[in-house]
Amino acid sequence: MVRLVTQRTYAVPGISCAHCKASIEAAVAGVPGVDAVEVDVAARTVRVDGDVSDEAVRAAIDDAGYDVAD
Amino acid sequence: MVRLVTQRTYAVPGISCAHCKASIEAAVAGVPGVDAVEVDVAARTVRVDGDVSDEAVRAAIDDAGYDVAD
Repeated sequence: MVRLVTQRTYAVPGISCAHCKASIEAAVAGVPGVDAVEVDVAARTVRVDGDVSDEAVRAAIDDAGYDVAD
Repeated sequence: MVRLVTQRTYAVPGISCAHCKASIEAAVAGVPGVDAVEVDVAARTVRVDGDVSDEAVRAAIDDAGYDVAD
């Protein structure tokens, strides 16, 4: 395989402002394997690109003080 | 997780024409979990979107008569 791209999108209803965005992006950026993370404040979603563990991403968002919606 | 998108790209040097494209796309489309497959004849690549088994994709390309480059 030449290239593998995996992109996960999480719904995080508690996202409401630029501070939330910065906190979550900083937390998720530290997860092993993350190539990129972007919080969309308007959509209240977190998009994570990379070969990462779903559990590790959820834990990082949780540690930042936010809940991931099912 | 709201959405998971996985995209794999394989190099297949033997791809040379529209017939190759049609054969490989038909073969890979039958692999469980494939959302989309597209052969780029000029680039000699096969892009597969979906939650699929790498081994199953390689086997389908092989069954169509083509070798995947490492």
